[in-house]
Amino acid sequence: MMLGVCYYPEHWPESMWQQDAQEMRQLGLQYVRIGEFAWSRIETCDGEYSFEWLDRAIETLANEGLQVIMCTPTATPPKWLIDKYPDILPVDIKTGTTRGFGSRRHYDFSSENYFREAMRISTVIAERYGKHPSVCGWQTDNEIACHDTTHSGSLVAKLAFQQWCKDYYQNDVEKLNTAWGNVFWSMEYQNFEQIELPILAVTETNPAHQLAYRRFSSDQVVKFHDAMVDIIRTHAPNRFVTHNFIPLVDTQTDNFALAKNLDFVSYDNYPLGRSDMFFKHMPAEQFKPYMRTGHPDFSSYSFDQSRGVSNKNFWVMEQQPGPVNWAHHNPRPEKGMVRLWSWQAFAHGADCVCYFRWRQVPFAQEQMHAGIKRNDNSKAAAWAEVEQMRDELAKVDFTISDPVQAKVAIVTGANSQWVTEIERQGDSYNHQRVEFAYYSALRQLGLAVDFVSVDHDLTPYALVVAPCLPIVPQAFVDKCQQAKVHLVIGPRSGSKTDELSLVPTLAPGVFQALVPVRVLSTETIRPDCSEVLHFNGAKFESQCWREELELADGVNVVATYHDGNPAVARHQNTSYVATLTCDIFLLEYFKTLATELDLTILTLPKDVRVVQRGQYTYLFNYAGYPQTVPSELQGQYVLGSASLAAYDVAIVKLA
Amino acid sequence: MMLGVCYYPEHWPESMWQQDAQEMRQLGLQYVRIGEFAWSRIETCDGEYSFEWLDRAIETLANEGLQVIMCTPTATPPKWLIDKYPDILPVDIKTGTTRGFGSRRHYDFSSENYFREAMRISTVIAERYGKHPSVCGWQTDNEIACHDTTHSGSLVAKLAFQQWCKDYYQNDVEKLNTAWGNVFWSMEYQNFEQIELPILAVTETNPAHQLAYRRFSSDQVVKFHDAMVDIIRTHAPNRFVTHNFIPLVDTQTDNFALAKNLDFVSYDNYPLGRSDMFFKHMPAEQFKPYMRTGHPDFSSYSFDQSRGVSNKNFWVMEQQPGPVNWAHHNPRPEKGMVRLWSWQAFAHGADCVCYFRWRQVPFAQEQMHAGIKRNDNSKAAAWAEVEQMRDELAKVDFTISDPVQAKVAIVTGANSQWVTEIERQGDSYNHQRVEFAYYSALRQLGLAVDFVSVDHDLTPYALVVAPCLPIVPQAFVDKCQQAKVHLVIGPRSGSKTDELSLVPTLAPGVFQALVPVRVLSTETIRPDCSEVLHFNGAKFESQCWREELELADGVNVVATYHDGNPAVARHQNTSYVATLTCDIFLLEYFKTLATELDLTILTLPKDVRVVQRGQYTYLFNYAGYPQTVPSELQGQYVLGSASLAAYDVAIVKLA
Amino acid sequence: MMLGVCYYPEHWPESMWQQDAQEMRQLGLQYVRIGEFAWSRIETCDGEYSFEWLDRAIETLANEGLQVIMCTPTATPPKWLIDKYPDILPVDIKTGTTRGFGSRRHYDFSSENYFREAMRISTVIAERYGKHPSVCGWQTDNEIACHDTTHSGSLVAKLAFQQWCKDYYQNDVEKLNTAWGNVFWSMEYQNFEQIELPILAVTETNPAHQLAYRRFSSDQVVKFHDAMVDIIRTHAPNRFVTHNFIPLVDTQTDNFALAKNLDFVSYDNYPLGRSDMFFKHMPAEQFKPYMRTGHPDFSSYSFDQSRGVSNKNFWVMEQQPGPVNWAHHNPRPEKGMVRLWSWQAFAHGADCVCYFRWRQVPFAQEQMHAGIKRNDNSKAAAWAEVEQMRDELAKVDFTISDPVQAKVAIVTGANSQWVTEIERQGDSYNHQRVEFAYYSALRQLGLAVDFVSVDHDLTPYALVVAPCLPIVPQAFVDKCQQAKVHLVIGPRSGSKTDELSLVPTLAPGVFQALVPVRVLSTETIRPDCSEVLHFNGAKFESQCWREELELADGVNVVATYHDGNPAVARHQNTSYVATLTCDIFLLEYFKTLATELDLTILTLPKDVRVVQRGQYTYLFNYAGYPQTVPSELQGQYVLGSASLAAYDVAIVKLA
Repeated sequence: MMLGVCYYPEHWPESMWQQDAQEMRQLGLQYVRIGEFAWSRIETCDGEYSFEWLDRAIETLANEGLQVIMCTPTATPPKWLIDKYPDILPVDIKTGTTRGFGSRRHYDFSSENYFREAMRISTVIAERYGKHPSVCGWQTDNEIACHDTTHSGSLVAKLAFQQWCKDYYQNDVEKLNTAWGNVFWSMEYQNFEQIELPILAVTETNPAHQLAYRRFSSDQVVKFHDAMVDIIRTHAPNRFVTHNFIPLVDTQTDNFALAKNLDFVSYDNYPLGRSDMFFKHMPAEQFKPYMRTGHPDFSSYSFDQSRGVSNKNFWVMEQQPGPVNWAHHNPRPEKGMVRLWSWQAFAHGADCVCYFRWRQVPFAQEQMHAGIKRNDNSKAAAWAEVEQMRDELAKVDFTISDPVQAKVAIVTGANSQWVTEIERQGDSYNHQRVEFAYYSALRQLGLAVDFVSVDHDLTPYALVVAPCLPIVPQAFVDKCQQAKVHLVIGPRSGSKTDELSLVPTLAPGVFQALVPVRVLSTETIRPDCSEVLHFNGAKFESQCWREELELADGVNVVATYHDGNPAVARHQNTSYVATLTCDIFLLEYFKTLATELDLTILTLPKDVRVVQRGQYTYLFNYAGYPQTVPSELQGQYVLGSASLAAYDVAIVKLA
Repeated sequence: MMLGVCYYPEHWPESMWQQDAQEMRQLGLQYVRIGEFAWSRIETCDGEYSFEWLDRAIETLANEGLQVIMCTPTATPPKWLIDKYPDILPVDIKTGTTRGFGSRRHYDFSSENYFREAMRISTVIAERYGKHPSVCGWQTDNEIACHDTTHSGSLVAKLAFQQWCKDYYQNDVEKLNTAWGNVFWSMEYQNFEQIELPILAVTETNPAHQLAYRRFSSDQVVKFHDAMVDIIRTHAPNRFVTHNFIPLVDTQTDNFALAKNLDFVSYDNYPLGRSDMFFKHMPAEQFKPYMRTGHPDFSSYSFDQSRGVSNKNFWVMEQQPGPVNWAHHNPRPEKGMVRLWSWQAFAHGADCVCYFRWRQVPFAQEQMHAGIKRNDNSKAAAWAEVEQMRDELAKVDFTISDPVQAKVAIVTGANSQWVTEIERQGDSYNHQRVEFAYYSALRQLGLAVDFVSVDHDLTPYALVVAPCLPIVPQAFVDKCQQAKVHLVIGPRSGSKTDELSLVPTLAPGVFQALVPVRVLSTETIRPDCSEVLHFNGAKFESQCWREELELADGVNVVATYHDGNPAVARHQNTSYVATLTCDIFLLEYFKTLATELDLTILTLPKDVRVVQRGQYTYLFNYAGYPQTVPSELQGQYVLGSASLAAYDVAIVKLA
Repeated sequence: MMLGVCYYPEHWPESMWQQDAQEMRQLGLQYVRIGEFAWSRIETCDGEYSFEWLDRAIETLANEGLQVIMCTPTATPPKWLIDKYPDILPVDIKTGTTRGFGSRRHYDFSSENYFREAMRISTVIAERYGKHPSVCGWQTDNEIACHDTTHSGSLVAKLAFQQWCKDYYQNDVEKLNTAWGNVFWSMEYQNFEQIELPILAVTETNPAHQLAYRRFSSDQVVKFHDAMVDIIRTHAPNRFVTHNFIPLVDTQTDNFALAKNLDFVSYDNYPLGRSDMFFKHMPAEQFKPYMRTGHPDFSSYSFDQSRGVSNKNFWVMEQQPGPVNWAHHNPRPEKGMVRLWSWQAFAHGADCVCYFRWRQVPFAQEQMHAGIKRNDNSKAAAWAEVEQMRDELAKVDFTISDPVQAKVAIVTGANSQWVTEIERQGDSYNHQRVEFAYYSALRQLGLAVDFVSVDHDLTPYALVVAPCLPIVPQAFVDKCQQAKVHLVIGPRSGSKTDELSLVPTLAPGVFQALVPVRVLSTETIRPDCSEVLHFNGAKFESQCWREELELADGVNVVATYHDGNPAVARHQNTSYVATLTCDIFLLEYFKTLATELDLTILTLPKDVRVVQRGQYTYLFNYAGYPQTVPSELQGQYVLGSASLAAYDVAIVKLA
């Protein structure tokens, strides 16, 4: 388990580099990521390269024993390139306006000119540093797809989409018309050149059309990214290649596909900025206790997802060290939280945590974003916590290959998100919130959770949960049967064909082989009009999304609606939850189920979380006051103790 | 009283048609509407027609004795036509962006190319099926003007508007400048070719300019529609022609003009979807009891308006049979509500109720919209209720020509809506909500209500209510005087000239002949800053819109503001309400007035509604529990009884 | 102290002019402003002038002894001019859409065509009326920059911005790149022709780029305006030149620069419309008492700012006389408020108050805006209050040159507003609200307040308050030291360089010479997540913006956060407030400080305000009930008495 930092030598006078490198080493940092926004300094104008400064910067870092992670600078094409090829600029799909130069990510994944130029600069840099002894690995681009850049409404995007459709539907436009149901509103095409992007129409466009466009856009990102990975691999043998992902729901890309050719996934972890946005409608009394910590399950939700995408350990490439600049409100972390988040990353499968950034930059867009050092070169609040990490990491005997071993898996994937974003049906359905609610309930019980795709091996698991899985391959059903897992399916699951049509046998479609129920009707209701949900003799809440179930003989009723109709049904080892619920129901429901499945659950104090990785169990106290962990967690404490201080961490080798 | 259904043979394999037709007949359906979105199947490319499939579909229906309502398919021009004439696409008036192909209604009423092509396809279809023995009637286009398509910001719209202005102002631009008051901000035009659409300006455009643009846009819709009606009449002798209207406030068209050449008006009735949107700011505790029924006065409000537009009975062309897909939240109807809404439509003057749609379609935009059958061809929840309708209709001896006989009329019209939308003055004034509040108060008293235009004969009425009538023709005042009705005028009435200027004698302008008051000033206040309104010794609320009145001698004060000044004034048989009020005031006010006017009012249980049509009185219980109707309603019950079950209907021939 | 009115002879039949003029005289009005929207009547088409009507209008007014204020009509270029030079139209920076003809202010300050044409018409009018004996002064344009017209996204604006950058950075693009920190995201330019406007980019543009664009846009407005002032001065010797400003925060222009060449500043005072918008999120129970008066400090806030901009007395060019038409809600003023606002303007340094408008106009955009007369020529509510003003002014012996003498100054300026708008950091920071909160606290203590720029002489003051001053010239620090004032600095102050970078020594930067503290970190928090602030043994609130302070030895802690850390620090006679606070804290804090500084403060009844101008002290009761002023305010009452009726005014020469 290692530490690193993000560094921008081009932002600082060369006279500061030497001291920076020395201090990094002293702070216990091993990795330094550089270069991802430096195109205008590397190629100052068309074809004129300037590498000497970068050579010297790497040299300076290397001299202190630091390992460099080099980036391709393609997230920020310089002005001269934009002026040469204006079709690089993407087009806003909500307005049709060109999105101009002046910030970052101003490129269209469908621009052939940009594709060629991006690969050219990647090649030039990979050629120069690919075999550099101090460049140990590579990061592609930067936070690909952020700022809603996966989708573009440009002419080049339209032409590429037409070609994609031609390929996808084997040059048979009738196949496309049928697959999409274009007859519905006389939307039939006679040839592929007629196909429009599903944007800026009079009213809602065809959901199948939208889904195809999302798949196309995702494929464009993956194609761009894969080509870059290939270039790096060609010129940088035996170096790792990774990418710093934003939260997976925000990429609008199939992250499993995007991560496929990477050595591992990296994640940029900003718990406070993200919490401010994710929980912005949360009442103050609920939000305030977490405003400087993030929700106890929020960071680990991203960590577990990052681990899941490539089914192996991951890195945190950017770890928030203090207040950021881009959320609606940007609080400072409570003292101790930078350490807590770092340990939590390791506990959930990180092999390295890099802090963003070394020093707060005094100019431009992110000047209010904290660093480990302040812009006057003094040490910021995070400094001492990184020092503590350095010292604590040295004290504990880790094995880097230690896995997180989960008996519970949550099935996720781009299709589920896309289908539910395209087909709102009720404004209050939010795929991410549903998934998070299920995840948080499991985590509160102390259960480790893997995120898996429908293609994943299910045999390691006792419990597989699909909070929302509208499109289901038959193979997934087969695997569930073979793996003998208990499967819990949330509402909407199995309801759609691969082309976003209704399944012909009613929902849950192919899942009916596991749980013979039929969804007779689906309704959505206002979030403030919840109704009673009966379970285990107690009252909970049915909310927002409610399905009417017909049960085959032998199917058991687990929970019922206010009117006595079944809300949760079960057949053998498959359960179908036909409604969204309050969080407390999920907690009680999974407590009951885990007990039955002989999964070890814990009764944890509120805001304490526990996870096991390898031989160690990690304990985290998100509360602002001391708490004592339950007696099951006794053993040899290699860090801290069973009495956790506020915002504290402990590590125990269980007895 | 008859039943029908909307059917899309082109969405289903031909092998299913026969069984569909048979089941329709068995379900007691008599009418089947078809064809309104089938252009791409009828004319697969330019000039190549394909009618055989449609011939066979009609044949199949006819063989079961079903009557076909044929539609012109002009709501969905196919892609090849758009590509041939790109000026068909309308332009968004809020953004200036072209509204593209990919959904429906993607046409500009001012496109001469589209006008010609729409009339061509209408002619072709009318020629083919106009005299078909099983095609009993025609529907024009579909939900004309929905999705905000009356207004376009295109070049063709601008040119057509210039011509309209030239005609309207007799080719005299000074007449236009004077009428609009263009001198105000140097907005004077020197010729008609200079005239812009009143959109996308730096700040608010001239209200008179906006009103002219709305009148022009409405005229364009009517012109388009009238031409289509003429074509149908030419080729389809002795068939009825109707159109399926959306709620009248949403067309942005003068519906009285639009309906003029039709045999009758049809209405598309979606009480739950519309309620979700209309009442979206209603607190949950008020909304929740109605979330699966709609407000008790909401459907009838539309029914009475539909009857009023052409002053005769109407059809429901599309009746919601289950959850829809397009509102913010889409609950299922309570069991019994499809029947209740159907009976309520009949009770308020419908001659036929058609359900939308026969079977839930598995693909495209409306796949989550319920049908009478589910997409797996099983019978959905509404099926049994339609069966019940079939049986009940057979049991009661109706006369189709039975009228609804109302002694109360509400005056409505496009001008009133347009003026109040153009001139907000206070954000919380909403013409539809004001009108609905007046309507609901009258309905809660058991009073039948007609909606009439200012041109309507007033002699049938004892009470005429104009909740909002800013522009008043002198002829209307004359008619009020001659008819000796009691007239109640709401705030803003009589305040504007026909060109949306202030009337020279202060409001209520020409109404001063009936009630000699002067509006000295008008204020609008925040909806949360209501003040006391004194009436009949009790306290109510004055809200949002408040006018200061000066009363001539002999005018009586009926209600007063918190400061003692007059809020409601009366002179002989005309009353002027100078403020918006709470709903409960309107109830008390009309109770007092109706008593004085010897109108029979009822004291109904909450959520019970009553209306008389012909010899029968219809009773509806919108509550989820049984209620007993008052003893005045005793008589011969031909359906149900005086004890209404939850969501139940009864029909009584009063003693 | 004088009265006047805004009049539009072109809106009325010439036959009414004579009676209007006579009544104006009788009402005690001395000044009549005319002509600012009359371009289309003065130049009916290109080069064809029509002045006779205007000559006659002036003659009619002059014959009654009225003095005319003539305007340049450049706020409303006529249609023929727009058609001749389409590049006059500005472009919306949020959408890229051209903002069309049809309202007003449809011109781009960077259009060279418009600049030339605007100066041409100004010259023509100034030549004709510059020496007219009855034209005593001139108003330039009208409410320059309102409707967000300072910024344009047009091509002409881009070209002018590139030239501005070239000048500002001495033709050295590297100087610009360094100043802005363009290296940050490869945003470096190679030449000035590459520079884009900082709009419509993929995400946030460079703050320094945005600041430069705001400075450029402001300079364009000032350049346009100065050229017009020069023309008037050339042709209109010995006449005053003024401009009617909108609230200073809304111009997006450096008002100190804009006012520089004017004889005095005028202000358009609409307390109710502005209050409705400024306080729109205020709960009803707080807002309702002021909905017909405005907040007691709201008008005076604008008055004091208007006086401050040119450091001399000002005019109110437009005073709201009744309900307006443009706010979200438009209540009528309480009876007495038109008089109260008028007296309050005088008390805060106005030399003349003109009412807008003479008579309510029946047509076009502002037909719902009240006048002194109604559109039927009857006398509106304000008439009697103006009569009362006329009579009261005659009774009191004023000296027009009497100054407001304040011992307290608030430092303001465009840079502060721009920096905080560009760099939100927390959504709930609002520069104007912060400044108003400080102002209101001081006013509640009876303290007179000057608004000053950083260039202002500080020697008159005992207390200088900078609620928000991110960019601080060293000279200002020097002046503070020399003037020996007590300086109170709010959060964010001193934090930025002149190019919107972080100061190298941490905030408060150059202020550290006065108060040696360092801002170690800055956080923003949700407005509903306030925390405790300890001061003087009581608990207040720390809100929204919170800075972590490090204090040098000898710096005192004045108030502390919930965690005991310093929130307000003080060193000698400089105090640093590191957080936003509740209003009641500011009141207590300034009470303590003013007492220490021997400033006379008053304990006023709620909603009573007091200000001294010259020999008189003016008392205002904003409450709807009588209140008695404290005994310190005894003396010779020249108007009213110490017992103030509701909405009443009194004037006392203190004993």
